[in-house]
Amino acid sequence: MTDFSRKDGRATDELRPVTITRNYLEAGEGSVLVEFGRTKVLCVASFTAGVPRWRKDSGLGWVTSEYAMLPRATDTRNQRESVKGKVGGRTQEISRLIGRSLRAVVDFEALGENTIVLDCDVLQADGGTRTASITGAYVALADAVAWGIANGHVHPRAGKPVLRDSISAISVGVIDGHPCLDLPYEEDSRAETDMNVVMTGAGKFIEIQGTAEGEPFSRTELGTLLDLAEKGNRELAKLQESVLA
Amino acid sequence: MTDFSRKDGRATDELRPVTITRNYLEAGEGSVLVEFGRTKVLCVASFTAGVPRWRKDSGLGWVTSEYAMLPRATDTRNQRESVKGKVGGRTQEISRLIGRSLRAVVDFEALGENTIVLDCDVLQADGGTRTASITGAYVALADAVAWGIANGHVHPRAGKPVLRDSISAISVGVIDGHPCLDLPYEEDSRAETDMNVVMTGAGKFIEIQGTAEGEPFSRTELGTLLDLAEKGNRELAKLQESVLA
Amino acid sequence: MTDFSRKDGRATDELRPVTITRNYLEAGEGSVLVEFGRTKVLCVASFTAGVPRWRKDSGLGWVTSEYAMLPRATDTRNQRESVKGKVGGRTQEISRLIGRSLRAVVDFEALGENTIVLDCDVLQADGGTRTASITGAYVALADAVAWGIANGHVHPRAGKPVLRDSISAISVGVIDGHPCLDLPYEEDSRAETDMNVVMTGAGKFIEIQGTAEGEPFSRTELGTLLDLAEKGNRELAKLQESVLA
Amino acid sequence: MTDFSRKDGRATDELRPVTITRNYLEAGEGSVLVEFGRTKVLCVASFTAGVPRWRKDSGLGWVTSEYAMLPRATDTRNQRESVKGKVGGRTQEISRLIGRSLRAVVDFEALGENTIVLDCDVLQADGGTRTASITGAYVALADAVAWGIANGHVHPRAGKPVLRDSISAISVGVIDGHPCLDLPYEEDSRAETDMNVVMTGAGKFIEIQGTAEGEPFSRTELGTLLDLAEKGNRELAKLQESVLA
Amino acid sequence: MTDFSRKDGRATDELRPVTITRNYLEAGEGSVLVEFGRTKVLCVASFTAGVPRWRKDSGLGWVTSEYAMLPRATDTRNQRESVKGKVGGRTQEISRLIGRSLRAVVDFEALGENTIVLDCDVLQADGGTRTASITGAYVALADAVAWGIANGHVHPRAGKPVLRDSISAISVGVIDGHPCLDLPYEEDSRAETDMNVVMTGAGKFIEIQGTAEGEPFSRTELGTLLDLAEKGNRELAKLQESVLA
Amino acid sequence: MTDFSRKDGRATDELRPVTITRNYLEAGEGSVLVEFGRTKVLCVASFTAGVPRWRKDSGLGWVTSEYAMLPRATDTRNQRESVKGKVGGRTQEISRLIGRSLRAVVDFEALGENTIVLDCDVLQADGGTRTASITGAYVALADAVAWGIANGHVHPRAGKPVLRDSISAISVGVIDGHPCLDLPYEEDSRAETDMNVVMTGAGKFIEIQGTAEGEPFSRTELGTLLDLAEKGNRELAKLQESVLA
Repeated sequence: MTDFSRKDGRATDELRPVTITRNYLEAGEGSVLVEFGRTKVLCVASFTAGVPRWRKDSGLGWVTSEYAMLPRATDTRNQRESVKGKVGGRTQEISRLIGRSLRAVVDFEALGENTIVLDCDVLQADGGTRTASITGAYVALADAVAWGIANGHVHPRAGKPVLRDSISAISVGVIDGHPCLDLPYEEDSRAETDMNVVMTGAGKFIEIQGTAEGEPFSRTELGTLLDLAEKGNRELAKLQESVLA
Repeated sequence: MTDFSRKDGRATDELRPVTITRNYLEAGEGSVLVEFGRTKVLCVASFTAGVPRWRKDSGLGWVTSEYAMLPRATDTRNQRESVKGKVGGRTQEISRLIGRSLRAVVDFEALGENTIVLDCDVLQADGGTRTASITGAYVALADAVAWGIANGHVHPRAGKPVLRDSISAISVGVIDGHPCLDLPYEEDSRAETDMNVVMTGAGKFIEIQGTAEGEPFSRTELGTLLDLAEKGNRELAKLQESVLA
Repeated sequence: MTDFSRKDGRATDELRPVTITRNYLEAGEGSVLVEFGRTKVLCVASFTAGVPRWRKDSGLGWVTSEYAMLPRATDTRNQRESVKGKVGGRTQEISRLIGRSLRAVVDFEALGENTIVLDCDVLQADGGTRTASITGAYVALADAVAWGIANGHVHPRAGKPVLRDSISAISVGVIDGHPCLDLPYEEDSRAETDMNVVMTGAGKFIEIQGTAEGEPFSRTELGTLLDLAEKGNRELAKLQESVLA
Repeated sequence: MTDFSRKDGRATDELRPVTITRNYLEAGEGSVLVEFGRTKVLCVASFTAGVPRWRKDSGLGWVTSEYAMLPRATDTRNQRESVKGKVGGRTQEISRLIGRSLRAVVDFEALGENTIVLDCDVLQADGGTRTASITGAYVALADAVAWGIANGHVHPRAGKPVLRDSISAISVGVIDGHPCLDLPYEEDSRAETDMNVVMTGAGKFIEIQGTAEGEPFSRTELGTLLDLAEKGNRELAKLQESVLA
Repeated sequence: MTDFSRKDGRATDELRPVTITRNYLEAGEGSVLVEFGRTKVLCVASFTAGVPRWRKDSGLGWVTSEYAMLPRATDTRNQRESVKGKVGGRTQEISRLIGRSLRAVVDFEALGENTIVLDCDVLQADGGTRTASITGAYVALADAVAWGIANGHVHPRAGKPVLRDSISAISVGVIDGHPCLDLPYEEDSRAETDMNVVMTGAGKFIEIQGTAEGEPFSRTELGTLLDLAEKGNRELAKLQESVLA
Repeated sequence: MTDFSRKDGRATDELRPVTITRNYLEAGEGSVLVEFGRTKVLCVASFTAGVPRWRKDSGLGWVTSEYAMLPRATDTRNQRESVKGKVGGRTQEISRLIGRSLRAVVDFEALGENTIVLDCDVLQADGGTRTASITGAYVALADAVAWGIANGHVHPRAGKPVLRDSISAISVGVIDGHPCLDLPYEEDSRAETDMNVVMTGAGKFIEIQGTAEGEPFSRTELGTLLDLAEKGNRELAKLQESVLA
């Protein structure tokens, strides 16, 4: 075990270089390019009046997300889902995850009957596209909420921020028996166990999705992976905070 | 906290009555009706020669699953996905989860280039349809594998069972601050945290999917929920074993 | 001709064992499992306020049906129509037939602007799934109408039952030159002529669909087949009556 | 009853003026415009080498049909099924009926592994579009078979015509209590009973589809309707024969 | 170059025989069969109250078009777009072109909040289906506008015709180095440059779509092609005028 | 007319600032970010072995393109075409235009049976997305061809470049009576005439698509617009050349 080293030279508990660029486009009430190493995701927040039909007249807002990959985000070209005529299971699963994660911290009463859609389009994929999307989408969401307040569409309640906390996400996994943080594609595709962990800035859990791709994992291994995820998310939360400052 | 009681009178660590009926239909190489309380799922295994294109000439078999709900499985009628013309995100997510979970224990070399499809159709839904599906589908899978061996299509490797272990799944969640095992719909829809845990008969983890629907959850709460899930899955594994004996 | 005998030993004018189980599920305002020999169909009636757009403000109700087969209802697995993304011609044809047949006896004025949907899902198919569906769906419909009356949604007109008569259906066909009643799959697939006959309890015709699969048939042969169908439907009507008593 | 008269002045057992124009287009191996009164259907036969996958290497040919209506064939414009993205139940039902009816008289061995597709496109609809389609498609089919023989693709067996008999179809129905032949839209939409009868030139039945739209019908009424249908089909068969002479 | 002659014997600046038959069907507020040589298109105008949602309460009308080919309009049969489940790019492109061209001359204020849909269904295709469609659709549109005026739905503004001018279209192209007018399929498929030109009766341009299929073309060649198109459209405008007189 | 000035201060014959960034991503055999003012399009070339079925065994290659807009490329969010389940007419039209334009200069014999797909995804749209796409896609195509040569997949013929010439495109239009070059969205949406002109580096035409959105245009106006387009394309060709040098 002493000889284990990661292809990109990182320590097992080290994030890839992460950058978050705000106002990447002129369109969108929030528009962020997030990079986890070579993974690049464009996260754009659109603020619109009104909510889905089932939520009308509730006085509450809504936040949702759509995730997609450009056809040549990966090494080989994938057919467009628009051309196929249907959205694949993986795409829907990730879209639902992003939306659900962000909704956990939103004060929908303050948002009022408005909807914020987070479009996460992967320009380049090298593992961790869903965790990068959540991490970047939170920043775009924060910008869109600020825009909503500035333009009189969102009314924070006394003493309560509209976003109760920040949200970030990171992947962890077991590679050749070694628990590692933030897996690029090369590691992800051969991980024995693969886990995505969504957390709040305060260090609580929003979502845990862990899968044994090879060997089933034990309670102890789970503990080690969660330790790594907590470290990674702490660093991401700090970065989000400094970027939004 | 002393006053907490579940609507159906169960202890917080108690499963609903679970029954697994083998050979429920005459069609199918395995055909199981699984009931978790009022939740009823028909799990049918179809054994067919050949594998998906991307797996051809690998010498390895494949196991996959499709989950669906009958339109009036729930209190109000849902439109059929065939009529809508597309399969929803939730359906795809669960289909993928069932297939992935079962694949974790299959010796694909022994299976040879054959595919077993597990159709899990929910006749009546009262929470826990995905965990019941996995638990029942494992039994249907075991029957289909036995059929494959008996008919000379599957060739176990010396000293190795084709299914390395059994697979079951159970939901856990926090209701009014109380961690509870095996949530019916009424509890599931108001759970603060909701988690589905897939395990092997040997007590290892295959998949953990936990979501904070309300408050984010702490590491400690996670621990308590996993304890419950381990207990529930132990009991399900025992039931599967006795049913298959 | 003296040597002709059916594989299952029945007389040529004999129905398969038919059972109708009411309240098969807890969901649904009517829920029936109907079995014609090995053919098993789950017929669930859903009662909902409102009617399709084109019937609004007419004061009249509506009854419709959707038929489907589970993927492994038959000997070989069929792809799900939800996954294919479209409903096949046979499925639509049978759905339309069931709805049309049931509507023939409904007092839509008494039903008021409510809709009853009959979902007929074939769990196991061995010929006669459409006739079993109609026969079972009638019972589910009767239960749903009774529910509607009991709950104050349906208002029978003085001296007039909401369902003017009962509806049942049976198949008849010519096998090896012998007219036979109630064909299982094995006979259906090699019948020279195949006919489905929908009748009222009073012995009148609602729908006749006869097809020469092999040789065209004569007016005389048609007569013999209708005699058989009348006998079969008389027996089914009696069974429905006793089940609903 | 003595006062009953049809809007268009016909006797109850009288066909509308029927015309069959061969070689209506230059494309197609058979191309027929058939008119039943104001109903106009363009029936084009396409002869192509090869058969559907499930019939390969059987040595047998195949005949199939696709029926469709132009959007403004009727009084009000209907949305195109191509634009809706799916083919409706009625369209599929009629397409299947036409194909099934024609196949009843084809010697598939003589046809060899070739397929003839009959496209029946309704230019103007005034009731009876399916019966006109079958009647016209038979003529187009005969032309395509002749083309196939002339071009060496079809090889009739000694002493056996490739088409064993001709096929025609007509509607009958009960209008204000009066059994009538060949219903235009105005009658069809208010018929108590409506029946389509497909017959061979020799006077045998290929398909009977009768539906009670209002009152259920008796065995006696059925007899009267079949008498009318036999008369109508006799006349259509004669016309087909003279047109093809 | 002196030896160049067209297969059908026409001069390079000569149209194919063009006929425009009004009132081809009884349905439709305008119904025209247009023929450019062997190309036959049925153009039917449907006048309906109301406009698309985005144009509501504008006081303005709308004109749109849908183009389609019957499956055997061409030498080999094409699959129906309704069966494929989607409308192809070429079909949409032509539908959009026809609608856009016609809208250029409509006084939408006079039309009021009514929509005229032009259905252009190609019965037989031999090149130039889009130009024939536009030319015929204009006549059907003129008839539908006249119908709208006669029936009090359209109110021309003082001194202003509802259709400011007529619209016609013709194809031009370079065949073996020779600029030619009105290309049949055989020429169109081997043209070096292919251009469709939509013009008003007054000789102005509505739309020019020119494509170098082989060699890029020069400004001079463009000039020659436009001269030809102007000549062709002048003749078509005259024919439309005489047909509508 | 002397007072006319463009909102962004440009001369009527002046391009917006144009930048072409090669190797924008690490994926793709060519990957270009092209900007026409605020319009940003990511053009990625994917080189793959093999050609579409209809071109197999021809010895010739293929070049095709798919164009799409990110949902929030524009001021208001558009629904994803993948979610709608179908690709719109405008999208298909532009995809076809890009592919057709590029194919005009490719030596398909040298390309061999390989396909290059050009994905043009609009990150930000401010008019001219199709002309920017063509202009950028040409550069990505040139890089992919160079990659193919360098990797031994493409074999240029003696003395002949694989790309015979460069391809660029620009829009021109009439704004308030003034012919202008390179229209941003604000001008495009109110142009009387709007034209897209695709040209080769040598100054010949590949495609002209001109539409009178308001008043029909005269031959003289057409001349002026083409002059402008020639000037714009000359400048774009020079830029492409310098970028590729």
